Amino acid sequence: MHTLVTGAGGFIGTLLCDRLLARTQSSDSRYTFVDRGLRARPDATNVRVLQSDLASGAELADIVQSADVVYHLAAVPGGASESDYALSRRVNLDVALAVLEASAARTRPARVIYASSIAVYGLATPDEVDDDTPPRPSLTYGAHKLMVETALADLSRRGRIDGLALRLPGIVARPGSGEGLRSAFMSNLFHAYAHGRPYTVPTSPDATVWVMSADRAVDNLLHGAQCSGWPAGTPRALTLPVMRVTVGELAAAVGRAVGTEPPITYEPDPDIEAQFGRLPRLTGCAAGTLGFASDGTIDALVARALAAAGLSGCMRAGATGRAPLE
Amino acid sequence: MHTLVTGAGGFIGTLLCDRLLARTQSSDSRYTFVDRGLRARPDATNVRVLQSDLASGAELADIVQSADVVYHLAAVPGGASESDYALSRRVNLDVALAVLEASAARTRPARVIYASSIAVYGLATPDEVDDDTPPRPSLTYGAHKLMVETALADLSRRGRIDGLALRLPGIVARPGSGEGLRSAFMSNLFHAYAHGRPYTVPTSPDATVWVMSADRAVDNLLHGAQCSGWPAGTPRALTLPVMRVTVGELAAAVGRAVGTEPPITYEPDPDIEAQFGRLPRLTGCAAGTLGFASDGTIDALVARALAAAGLSGCMRAGATGRAPLE
Repeated sequence: MHTLVTGAGGFIGTLLCDRLLARTQSSDSRYTFVDRGLRARPDATNVRVLQSDLASGAELADIVQSADVVYHLAAVPGGASESDYALSRRVNLDVALAVLEASAARTRPARVIYASSIAVYGLATPDEVDDDTPPRPSLTYGAHKLMVETALADLSRRGRIDGLALRLPGIVARPGSGEGLRSAFMSNLFHAYAHGRPYTVPTSPDATVWVMSADRAVDNLLHGAQCSGWPAGTPRALTLPVMRVTVGELAAAVGRAVGTEPPITYEPDPDIEAQFGRLPRLTGCAAGTLGFASDGTIDALVARALAAAGLSGCMRAGATGRAPLE
Repeated sequence: MHTLVTGAGGFIGTLLCDRLLARTQSSDSRYTFVDRGLRARPDATNVRVLQSDLASGAELADIVQSADVVYHLAAVPGGASESDYALSRRVNLDVALAVLEASAARTRPARVIYASSIAVYGLATPDEVDDDTPPRPSLTYGAHKLMVETALADLSRRGRIDGLALRLPGIVARPGSGEGLRSAFMSNLFHAYAHGRPYTVPTSPDATVWVMSADRAVDNLLHGAQCSGWPAGTPRALTLPVMRVTVGELAAAVGRAVGTEPPITYEPDPDIEAQFGRLPRLTGCAAGTLGFASDGTIDALVARALAAAGLSGCMRAGATGRAPLE
């Protein structure tokens, strides 16, 4: 069983690779982790770490075709895609399509898990989003994600891959400043509280966001690879169950967990508020019935998010937030 | 004013080019008609006819960037796309994206009219289709059309092109055998009646199809290029108003028009019936309010369709089918 992870050096990719290697390994388990930049990993005969941007078609075909399970996470984030269309076209569209098509060249269809995004919905703000809400991306990032979802569904229909696109919401808490990521404010909130630093949030406190801890996102990616017996007619692109909270509720929950009250101010940026802060209720989604899950409670989400960012040490004693879901 | 037509040698392309040249020309009107194969046209200093499959990026950029209006019709049809994925990828996706992006490199955004298809809806058969019905293509042809629609909407949002994707239904009556075209049965019905030939229809007589005469399709393409002052929030992909008729009704109308009764039998192919013969009511579409139109009546549709196929001579005296819409 050969598992390939692209974007393995990214925030979610790193956690995913850790979790894959922490599982009980069978004798034929082997892994290829690919990214432009990758931290060193302890020597393991069954792990190949490859520095590559997958720009070479021949290299890509060689790597992908032997993989039984592919997690395609490599992507340019939303802000960077918006400011550099050609870069998003190359990385978010061309490389993603090349990965799908290289996988499709196998005799036995591989399970391909594609990290898509709720950015496919764009600014559309109906009263609620369900499985029949038409995606209308309002950023190049979301447009390219939707195009890859469409190709993935088509190649799955043709029986060439066994693909699944999982639409991730805002993932917390990313380390660092979240450069090129327009939704970074959600993660930055965690760092502000953890370090007792002032922070100006670019939304109103009433902004409603869809959010998930990185740990829970990885749970869902792993679950996606293990799901079998895909019910006929189930869409190949699933919006994951999410926690829908206001930014104010999120801030309060982080404050409760770490026990600080740094000066947080709100200066809404209309564009960021429109893109990320008006998300409606999410209802009736197939993903829930297929075993995918949200963080369950906001306190559980916050505890996991702090852990993912290496900020667990900042938590108050007793504020573990461990919820029944675990 | 430089107008470019790709797929100019195809069925709709030929009619479109004829109509463009039949209009009153202004002193700065010029045209470039591109296709792999093109019939000769009378010498005209303002018309350039180019044999090309647009596979060379440099040539394509050179042609597209000077065009103020682009009609991108070039495509591999549905059946051929289904049997040759790589061909559809190259022509229906890569070349189409290259046309959009070459156009996007202009300083002043060009009007880009893209011939999309109701194939974007796939097998989904809700009670009706409206502007909010999520597209779920069930053929590679429809998947690639949807991907290009998505890119066109994104580049329009970025202000780089002024794009419009028009989703065409079954177009009648194509000359010839409609090789590679799975919906060719609709046109074949016209030829059978016009020549008094037996024909076996691969659907039931109760199959409901969405259909439009080639002439009316060209009316709509021309209207698309002339529409200005696009209302904010209007989708960049429009499903055109269509005639929804049963195949039996269509056959009867053709029979009335040409006055023959050849032996027509119905042997439904479940796959063709599912793809083309279960189309629901089409309601509430923005295209109608923007001045796009169906053929209006089935008799008008049949008369225009016979004319487009060069079969007008087969019509009974008096059966002109000219309807008030004209």
